[in-house]
Amino acid sequence: MIRVAILGATGYTALEAIRLLQRHPQATVTAVTSRQDIGKPIEAVHPSLTGSLSLPLSALDPDRLAEACDVVFCCLPHGASAQTVRALREAGLRVIDFSADFRLRQVADYEAWYQVEHPWPEQIGKVAYGLPELFAEEIAGADLVANPGCYPTSAILPLAPLLAAGVIEASDIIVDSKSGVSGAGRTPKLVNLYGEANESIMAYGVGQHRHQPEMVDVLQRFSGTGPELLFTPHLTPMDRGILSTIYVRPQGTDAAGVLQLWQQQYGDSPFVHVVDSLPATKHVSGSNHVHLAVRQCGSRLVLIAALDNLIKGASGAAVQNLNCMYGLDPTLGLER
Amino acid sequence: MIRVAILGATGYTALEAIRLLQRHPQATVTAVTSRQDIGKPIEAVHPSLTGSLSLPLSALDPDRLAEACDVVFCCLPHGASAQTVRALREAGLRVIDFSADFRLRQVADYEAWYQVEHPWPEQIGKVAYGLPELFAEEIAGADLVANPGCYPTSAILPLAPLLAAGVIEASDIIVDSKSGVSGAGRTPKLVNLYGEANESIMAYGVGQHRHQPEMVDVLQRFSGTGPELLFTPHLTPMDRGILSTIYVRPQGTDAAGVLQLWQQQYGDSPFVHVVDSLPATKHVSGSNHVHLAVRQCGSRLVLIAALDNLIKGASGAAVQNLNCMYGLDPTLGLER
Amino acid sequence: MIRVAILGATGYTALEAIRLLQRHPQATVTAVTSRQDIGKPIEAVHPSLTGSLSLPLSALDPDRLAEACDVVFCCLPHGASAQTVRALREAGLRVIDFSADFRLRQVADYEAWYQVEHPWPEQIGKVAYGLPELFAEEIAGADLVANPGCYPTSAILPLAPLLAAGVIEASDIIVDSKSGVSGAGRTPKLVNLYGEANESIMAYGVGQHRHQPEMVDVLQRFSGTGPELLFTPHLTPMDRGILSTIYVRPQGTDAAGVLQLWQQQYGDSPFVHVVDSLPATKHVSGSNHVHLAVRQCGSRLVLIAALDNLIKGASGAAVQNLNCMYGLDPTLGLER
Amino acid sequence: MIRVAILGATGYTALEAIRLLQRHPQATVTAVTSRQDIGKPIEAVHPSLTGSLSLPLSALDPDRLAEACDVVFCCLPHGASAQTVRALREAGLRVIDFSADFRLRQVADYEAWYQVEHPWPEQIGKVAYGLPELFAEEIAGADLVANPGCYPTSAILPLAPLLAAGVIEASDIIVDSKSGVSGAGRTPKLVNLYGEANESIMAYGVGQHRHQPEMVDVLQRFSGTGPELLFTPHLTPMDRGILSTIYVRPQGTDAAGVLQLWQQQYGDSPFVHVVDSLPATKHVSGSNHVHLAVRQCGSRLVLIAALDNLIKGASGAAVQNLNCMYGLDPTLGLER
Repeated sequence: MIRVAILGATGYTALEAIRLLQRHPQATVTAVTSRQDIGKPIEAVHPSLTGSLSLPLSALDPDRLAEACDVVFCCLPHGASAQTVRALREAGLRVIDFSADFRLRQVADYEAWYQVEHPWPEQIGKVAYGLPELFAEEIAGADLVANPGCYPTSAILPLAPLLAAGVIEASDIIVDSKSGVSGAGRTPKLVNLYGEANESIMAYGVGQHRHQPEMVDVLQRFSGTGPELLFTPHLTPMDRGILSTIYVRPQGTDAAGVLQLWQQQYGDSPFVHVVDSLPATKHVSGSNHVHLAVRQCGSRLVLIAALDNLIKGASGAAVQNLNCMYGLDPTLGLER
Repeated sequence: MIRVAILGATGYTALEAIRLLQRHPQATVTAVTSRQDIGKPIEAVHPSLTGSLSLPLSALDPDRLAEACDVVFCCLPHGASAQTVRALREAGLRVIDFSADFRLRQVADYEAWYQVEHPWPEQIGKVAYGLPELFAEEIAGADLVANPGCYPTSAILPLAPLLAAGVIEASDIIVDSKSGVSGAGRTPKLVNLYGEANESIMAYGVGQHRHQPEMVDVLQRFSGTGPELLFTPHLTPMDRGILSTIYVRPQGTDAAGVLQLWQQQYGDSPFVHVVDSLPATKHVSGSNHVHLAVRQCGSRLVLIAALDNLIKGASGAAVQNLNCMYGLDPTLGLER
Repeated sequence: MIRVAILGATGYTALEAIRLLQRHPQATVTAVTSRQDIGKPIEAVHPSLTGSLSLPLSALDPDRLAEACDVVFCCLPHGASAQTVRALREAGLRVIDFSADFRLRQVADYEAWYQVEHPWPEQIGKVAYGLPELFAEEIAGADLVANPGCYPTSAILPLAPLLAAGVIEASDIIVDSKSGVSGAGRTPKLVNLYGEANESIMAYGVGQHRHQPEMVDVLQRFSGTGPELLFTPHLTPMDRGILSTIYVRPQGTDAAGVLQLWQQQYGDSPFVHVVDSLPATKHVSGSNHVHLAVRQCGSRLVLIAALDNLIKGASGAAVQNLNCMYGLDPTLGLER
Repeated sequence: MIRVAILGATGYTALEAIRLLQRHPQATVTAVTSRQDIGKPIEAVHPSLTGSLSLPLSALDPDRLAEACDVVFCCLPHGASAQTVRALREAGLRVIDFSADFRLRQVADYEAWYQVEHPWPEQIGKVAYGLPELFAEEIAGADLVANPGCYPTSAILPLAPLLAAGVIEASDIIVDSKSGVSGAGRTPKLVNLYGEANESIMAYGVGQHRHQPEMVDVLQRFSGTGPELLFTPHLTPMDRGILSTIYVRPQGTDAAGVLQLWQQQYGDSPFVHVVDSLPATKHVSGSNHVHLAVRQCGSRLVLIAALDNLIKGASGAAVQNLNCMYGLDPTLGLER
């Protein structure tokens, strides 16, 4: 049994991770930490866990975690996360980091976009990026995995095989993404109040969202030269789900060619599915699945990807990475 | 032109009051106050007012308000409100108070339920209760009106005529109410986060909600002896609306008798409508209307009332009170 | 491996049943039938099944089903269902019937409430009612189980132990229930259009809903004489979930006494949980769990039950019944 | 008093038109027609009109309408609409047509995109396009106005001044639009069921939506040569609202230049507002307002427009056209 600790256990992604791990036949949650509500049972913070997990919330102590756990899901905010991850690694724990702290490969990029000094710059560039569909080998041997951002997953999966094959222009990519409100976290702020978010859709962080450099950084590994990518996220009145509508210019390919490349890359994937009809976030809600579709429109191709931001965009990806790190069947804990 | 000040202008009820007053042919908003964002234009806080009202938010100063305004909509929290209302009255302003501070007729009741000393106990019992359908005369002459609670309006309107006529048992009344999330206000709290409130319904404050003594206090004026009333509010995943399902025991009447009493009381009302089909909050959303229906079920009658908690349950009622206080047509500013 | 057929596979409960059975280690879906779209893969009708189940929809043929399956989940409308169930039983199949056709114990009751002649009246009164928390023994040996209605489950679970113990007045019970829109099915009708149901709550079928006699019939087995029960369902703007707020009069008990009786009855249940805080449908969404709470309010007790209408209220209950019929661990396929 | 008939009165746009006209000081609804429910009061079909309009639904008879009305809001489906409009015009009525039948300027375009023979081809090209912000003069003298599509309004308003000034590349325009479900109409279909549309976002009609040629046709009047435009509409889980995110390539301008052109064109408009913060559909919900914003992102400009699809995207536009046709103040009936 793999013993898992969940750090920052009061948020939505942590809840989702706990839920998934409870169904996992070879993993079990043995510690949940938090800065507040220490000593309370986790079900006081997440009533949906009533009757299924009754661990108390504890303070974060790397050494004690090292005794009780094998691997840590670190759901802390960026900056804080890297510092903690360092201590966890020094205590000998394997770590899947949900923050953005180890996703970019250049310290300068990180510090420019996140406006903080990186607490563990030596690690930057040496951490596996946790998309097993593309980086399974690196993840398999890793002790530290950077769990991808929710938006980047929705953009990288459809784009990577096309950029690798050179069949789309890397210099002209638009990613228009729509996300459910859970992406804004569980901290009370005006923007994620029901009265503000319900019955409304809006763009935010246009051209300034930190997931844009993440997309560029990862896709560059496939395109060679850095892709030029414009990213616009939107806050959508629903709990969960991301739909990314991606506009690209084909060069020497068409919709059929795209389907073929996707099939080649993801034909064996238990999670990434190419579909005929247009994807809806509801079709993947609550699952680790991604639905991909393509349409040809004049001189452009429209790529569409749908996933659940809390599962494939966060906690499902983490479980998938766990399975990959431990050489397990990729679908453990992730069956529909 | 009646000049109106809106105090506590950053909340949802204040926004709704401003919207309604902008359509009012004989009233105009001349001041908006707030504790935060002073100096900012109101449209920075309420973007939906862009292009229609560009007053700056100012600090609350009774004397300056007295120069610029005739009447005040006081949208402050209880306790704070009574104190301010006192100063406003002393400065010569007429006041419609949105808080609960002047709704109950006994200081002891107020202090027991609200757990604060009342800042102006001399006024208690002398303030008009702002339901013009029932207390038009008192409101017409008043300089201070207690704007009713949203839930009480939904319970008092259907019950008052029946209790006055003695056709239902005053000792056995259950009010099961369902409210949209705007009733929880615009202050970020876990309970009114999108991720908590969406896709969920829950009861809260069962038997302990402060609107219960308000219902009892007002209904007592009709029933003579105090009605025994059990009130259960529910948080419902929608922006606005209250549906109250009320269970009573008839004595010597039936559904037809109820309809007749309602028709008698509200037949001339521009806002209270007795309907055949079952009311839905959507049918009254955005309006100052109340829909009432009744069904006979064995030994009980089920009364159903629907209204918009932000309009008839708050700001529409205030405008209606304003019209009543100034002897205007009751529908000014409140046409559908 | 228990081979399961899903009849009427295009609806929401069928989809949910398929999802649950895919996670069931000892059951597998081997046939899906429908009147329309025959020959199409099930994933064309339910895109969320893409990549996880690719059975084609077939026409309903009891003999062929008997070859391919051991047990049938019959998700057909009442009337049609009983006729089909008869044929399925004659072909030797075990059946879990989702319709109301075998839930009542009196043919006259059925025909009065459903306004159709019962197609198999001989069976009435001999069929196990599929609430394993209360009728495990009958279900264990049964070849035909009547899967309970969603509302009845939310009322019977809290009420049965109290009526059995005689601690509440059987003659004064009010059940005020709020259900998500999926309860209205997947057939396009005005009432379940997004534009009608969203941002609105309404009562429907007040005192006339067919789940009322079902509640009465089942609870009578515990109360002895027939309970008098008033039931008001409400359509609530959310996909799934039922919250029932139940008003009863204690006789010689209090909230603590209720908790004790519930604990006695459900203390060992993996699914029914007594909670301290007030239940919300979100806390049980997607699970087979029921949350129960009680509050004392003057001379009444308020009982609150929350469940997921598509899971514990339909397909989860069916899987739980399947487990019971086959002597399996009750949680198979139903882990959170 | 201008007497208005509403044809096809049972839909959402018709309801909205009636609501707006009830507040109009110089217009009144004198007839409502429908194919079904003839003889029933309109409030039986639209309960929200209870107590405010009690006209009976009548069958469509151009000659009788000509007696009772001056102008017709024709809310019929395309094809059917043109035929009716012809009869209405022959009976001497002025008409605002909500369908697409007279929006395009080429019969061939219409017949290619709508797959029907046009019933009144002689009129094509002679009908005023009902966007008073751009075509006020033509509308002022017109007896027949083509009310714009909801999506086109959201794209044409931001794009027209930029194309007219030649500051963006006409050959590279992407319009990614998100619409509330009311855009799908009130006819029960699977796609607009609550259970399908809620908690989900999806693209539809990618590159094939009929509003695309409408955008191109109207914008061509500003760009000279036909713009190349890719349009992707999305169904968003909310009642109302359209947000269009538009990607263009500037040539010799920047965000400031865009703001200046918009200010020039719309500075005096009571409805089109350029805003600093990012528009949200909630900020314009229930109003005839449009919020526009621009952001510069690398080599592209992102234009964002928000409006209420039922008001500025349909019925509000119609009232605005009415005001323009009759030389009235443009805001009559449309005050916030």
